[in-house]
Amino acid sequence: MSSTSDWRALAASKRESVAAKIPAEWRLPKSFTSQFTQTSRISVLDVPRKSGLLNDRELELTENYDATALVELMVAGKATSYEVTTAFCKRAAIAQQVINCCTEIMFNEALVRAKECDEYLKTKGKPMGKFHGLPISLKDSFNVKGVQSTLCYVSFLSHPPDTENSALVDIILSEGAVIYVKTNIPQTMMTADSDNNVFGRTLNPNNLSLTAGGSTGGEGALIKFRGSVLGCATDIAGSIRLPALCNGVFGFKPTAQRIPFARTTPPGRLGSPSTIYPVIGPEAHSIRDMHLFLKTVIDNDPWELDENVLAVPWRTLTPPSRPIRLGLIIEDPSFPLHPPIQRALQSAATAIKEAGHFIVPIPTTDIPSIYDAAALAWKFFLLDPQKTAVKHVQASGEPWVPSIPTVTFPQNHGWEPSLDNLWDMNVEHAKIRKVFHDIVVEKKLDVILMPGYQATAVPHDTFGVPIYTVLPNLLDYPAASLPYLKAEKELDKDFVRTDVTYAPPYTPEAVEGAPSSIQLVGRPMKDEELLNIIETVGEILKLSTE
Amino acid sequence: MSSTSDWRALAASKRESVAAKIPAEWRLPKSFTSQFTQTSRISVLDVPRKSGLLNDRELELTENYDATALVELMVAGKATSYEVTTAFCKRAAIAQQVINCCTEIMFNEALVRAKECDEYLKTKGKPMGKFHGLPISLKDSFNVKGVQSTLCYVSFLSHPPDTENSALVDIILSEGAVIYVKTNIPQTMMTADSDNNVFGRTLNPNNLSLTAGGSTGGEGALIKFRGSVLGCATDIAGSIRLPALCNGVFGFKPTAQRIPFARTTPPGRLGSPSTIYPVIGPEAHSIRDMHLFLKTVIDNDPWELDENVLAVPWRTLTPPSRPIRLGLIIEDPSFPLHPPIQRALQSAATAIKEAGHFIVPIPTTDIPSIYDAAALAWKFFLLDPQKTAVKHVQASGEPWVPSIPTVTFPQNHGWEPSLDNLWDMNVEHAKIRKVFHDIVVEKKLDVILMPGYQATAVPHDTFGVPIYTVLPNLLDYPAASLPYLKAEKELDKDFVRTDVTYAPPYTPEAVEGAPSSIQLVGRPMKDEELLNIIETVGEILKLSTE
Repeated sequence: MSSTSDWRALAASKRESVAAKIPAEWRLPKSFTSQFTQTSRISVLDVPRKSGLLNDRELELTENYDATALVELMVAGKATSYEVTTAFCKRAAIAQQVINCCTEIMFNEALVRAKECDEYLKTKGKPMGKFHGLPISLKDSFNVKGVQSTLCYVSFLSHPPDTENSALVDIILSEGAVIYVKTNIPQTMMTADSDNNVFGRTLNPNNLSLTAGGSTGGEGALIKFRGSVLGCATDIAGSIRLPALCNGVFGFKPTAQRIPFARTTPPGRLGSPSTIYPVIGPEAHSIRDMHLFLKTVIDNDPWELDENVLAVPWRTLTPPSRPIRLGLIIEDPSFPLHPPIQRALQSAATAIKEAGHFIVPIPTTDIPSIYDAAALAWKFFLLDPQKTAVKHVQASGEPWVPSIPTVTFPQNHGWEPSLDNLWDMNVEHAKIRKVFHDIVVEKKLDVILMPGYQATAVPHDTFGVPIYTVLPNLLDYPAASLPYLKAEKELDKDFVRTDVTYAPPYTPEAVEGAPSSIQLVGRPMKDEELLNIIETVGEILKLSTE
Repeated sequence: MSSTSDWRALAASKRESVAAKIPAEWRLPKSFTSQFTQTSRISVLDVPRKSGLLNDRELELTENYDATALVELMVAGKATSYEVTTAFCKRAAIAQQVINCCTEIMFNEALVRAKECDEYLKTKGKPMGKFHGLPISLKDSFNVKGVQSTLCYVSFLSHPPDTENSALVDIILSEGAVIYVKTNIPQTMMTADSDNNVFGRTLNPNNLSLTAGGSTGGEGALIKFRGSVLGCATDIAGSIRLPALCNGVFGFKPTAQRIPFARTTPPGRLGSPSTIYPVIGPEAHSIRDMHLFLKTVIDNDPWELDENVLAVPWRTLTPPSRPIRLGLIIEDPSFPLHPPIQRALQSAATAIKEAGHFIVPIPTTDIPSIYDAAALAWKFFLLDPQKTAVKHVQASGEPWVPSIPTVTFPQNHGWEPSLDNLWDMNVEHAKIRKVFHDIVVEKKLDVILMPGYQATAVPHDTFGVPIYTVLPNLLDYPAASLPYLKAEKELDKDFVRTDVTYAPPYTPEAVEGAPSSIQLVGRPMKDEELLNIIETVGEILKLSTE
């Protein structure tokens, strides 16, 4: 399995088998889809409406509700799961043909399941659970019985279908969810361009020439396209939040060990001694949907299903009754904020302050270099002396995708992990955690307000290293990316600085209209408090995905 | 600092400086203390009473109360902290001369502090906190401002006094505690004989020829001697529970990251990538004192003081309203239970069952070898390629204490840690955690009842490896050692088996009257539930330290 023709043929065969699962009547003409290329700056958010494939009811069901409202609708008998699932399957089929965001398609199974949900409600007179009848999309790394988890490695195409569901999949199914697609990721899951040699590249529906982010990029793009209303994502360096901010949806990375990770397929070797843990969280259309997801999963006592989950119940809080104290980290000197993000952050801070809360500046001089912290985090991701992920790539002869070499820190070049070095890394890691902890305690901060990335989504393969999202992973602080404002060159021009070097370059025309974002970072294990504050901030900033 | 005479002189000088802190009027005549040798099988529990140094009031204060009752007494104005502290200082001074259990003596500072507590109560009309006026003893590894933490390494004798308190010390002081002694530990803290070249060996007050256990052995012995009513201990392989079971007191090892470890002095290198974490817990005279300790510390929001503590509040539970389900692990074939422990375990299981609860056998064949699990745990303790603890010993030229070579697993001989191996160890560790998790979930167990050690306290330097206590560390399950029954050769003879090899050897005469014990193991993060069940079991078994 080493020649070029071999891996290409295997990948093509997989793509064809997935494409074949889209019913003929849901296919778009080639003449129509050929305009959707990765160099086109167009938005495709209106394609479902223009395609003529969805009727008014299906457009309404996919566009006018968040997950919470859809479940309410179905539980109230105002829509069936079959209707809702059909609508989202159709829309996901369109998304797949336009922005290439899916890896596994399970429409048939989903429609059977949707009927079961409808039947259950009808015969038992009660919903299956908190996700009754709701289609939920899954990152490719989640296991679904009978479906492959290729992780988009050509060498994994020979793997048999999974024989068990991920623990999280079991939980959402027990709550009535409908599984209908798995979504695209980057090769190795360690770059922010969801591009690989099996399924190709996912495009950003806001602007096809921009990255969809990663690693849960298929989700972010599909959700923004409203081919999904709620998605299950994972994050070790920003993989929930980067696609959220690139596409303009919400993403929440909880504290580690609260949402069960059991029986997901890893992109590398099991048994990492890294002290940075991968976590699962939602990508969503609304803040309350993130709440629905986190509370529902944790209310299922996931520690009974996964020995690595902390047995800590979800706490229901009342809205903050006092002014919130938000620490503000504006930027790290290594990656100056692009004008749209600088404007979004400043606008958010001003509005929050005007609403009566406290913005407490955290000067760069008070904290360790965020860039150096990210470089340290990357060393933790490179601890496998066997370089298993590299072997997974090399095993098939597939090449590296273009963005892989861009996700690197010069100071780590030539670095080879050693056990001795790992002890020192842990000491360094502990120091950084202590500095941030002490600042948060001394300044009595409820959350930190900071950028999730220095820019909006940027042109493909130019994203580079995600230093602003990986910091909360390094600290194990919960963090959320919130869509807020858009790049508008007329407004952004006042924020252009000539004394800094933007990396990647700032090109107003390339990103015009792209969603901007802010990041809110909470305190460890206080996911509930973070969400509570996000709800307050969301009202102040009138946050929504539209 | 390498010649023999040098290290001996340094150690002698330290011992003298500590001994000099015992007031002349509290010293026992050499003619009296010379009988207290490590080969004598006598109990010294009555020495304080016989010594004539304590008056009736002091005997009453040190003998008739647990910590909870002493604090109640002081808060009610029925005793002053000065009285109570004086009594415990005196009794600790006697203990030091008889069983050699202290490392640092702070009687003067304690009496000043006690007066402060009394003054506070008098002027403010309220107690300082939950430990108002209470003398609490500390393992040597806790930092106290102005006092050395030598960890009993000769090479640490040149270290300056600590400049900060351990986070835990700050908490107990804020709750009104009085610090008066630090207590003895083994060289490197990795053997169960609290013996080292600086302070020498701590003897077991029940029987001087038996080990006091370790690594928090000075505590266990001092508490049993009633030279302390409550002690702060640490545990990574059994160091809270082994001294508890050797001396016949209670010891509780919580889940990791609940009690703050910040600013303790480590015996080895910082930054260990081991997935087995050291934890802090109490050694105590009563179950309610363990509860007092854990609840009080966690009620202080220790996550504000130590970034490594999980922000999870202490939960107050009501007693179980349904029968408890206790899984029963009797023994691992590698270390058959000695008759006194077999009898204690069987007696406990029978009584608990007769009280209406469920005893659910866990056959050895259903679980991984506890011996092999312990050997794996030991590899995690040996991950430092620089062997820092060994260097701390070698730096002064001091020799190894006799028990060090006995704490070893043949399968680990010649093993050198490597990063690659660590990944595999983590996989192995995860497998073991999963097996136990699945058993606990499938059998719906609330706790596991098992031995804490295969024997009572055994003659010095024969203890060997603590496989039964290290298992809960490997699993990160909370666990407590509970004193229950005593070795009585007349009753134990029915339990003698001829088809097993007892290791260390079972010699009824050597251990006659030594305290027996059981271990109860809870579920991770469910320290509250474990303690709740211990309270129920304690009533059934009428557990006490007397």
